[in-house]
Order: sequence, then C-alpha cells, then structure tokens
Amino acid sequence: MCDLNAYLLKEGKEELFLENVDVIRPEGDTVYLKSLFGEERWFEGAIKEILAIKRKIVLQPAPKH
Amino acid sequence: MCDLNAYLLKEGKEELFLENVDVIRPEGDTVYLKSLFGEERWFEGAIKEILAIKRKIVLQPAPKH
Repeated sequence: MCDLNAYLLKEGKEELFLENVDVIRPEGDTVYLKSLFGEERWFEGAIKEILAIKRKIVLQPAPKH
Repeated sequence: MCDLNAYLLKEGKEELFLENVDVIRPEGDTVYLKSLFGEERWFEGAIKEILAIKRKIVLQPAPKH
C-alpha cells in the first residue's frame, strides 16, 4: 500500500500529523487529508513537499497574522 | 515503490503529465515535480488532489489572464 504519513513542520522540526493518508486536497488556505480508515483532518496551511518514495507529506502552517 | 503518476486536468479530462514522480513541491504559482529518474518539470498551476492508493497526482492549470 502506498499511503502516506503527513508531518507538520514546526520550528524546523517535523511532527507527525496524520498517518496512512490516502487523499490530500488543497482547499484555499487549508489542506484536506483523509486516511485509509476514513479519518478526516483539515490543516490550516499548505503542502510544503511530498516525497513519494519516502511515503511522506510535509505540511507548513499558515503564517500567523 | 510508491512513486506517483502526475495527470493534468484539461477540459475535464486527465492527461498524463509525468510518470514515476518522487518529489512534488508547490512553489508559488508553479508545482515542481521530479521523477525517480531525475527528470524535472515545472507546472504552471496547482495541485488539485493526490490519491495515494491510486498513486496519482492531479494538477490543475493556472487560470488564464
């Protein structure tokens, strides 16, 4: 299975946000993620990068106003 | 291997853009993609969605001005 693990970039470190991600959909200023198990999360920020072979998504929080 | 195939959404149809994609990185109004074989492409537009289990990225062209 080629599901991905989503990490959140926080103060230069990667923190696990959601495992076994199947669907990722940028929606304006948020990113919608859905896991294999139907778990849904909305992340305020953007995709920084996806590393498919490492099965990894890195998410970057929206800048604070 | 969990590389992805990138498709471009064109008039409601999906057209193959780049196979065996490993790295995807949104960069402003473009999306950088790099294949397993080191092939690099810059796409003018955005990520519409990623379907990990289907090993698929769908790209949406930037609206024309």
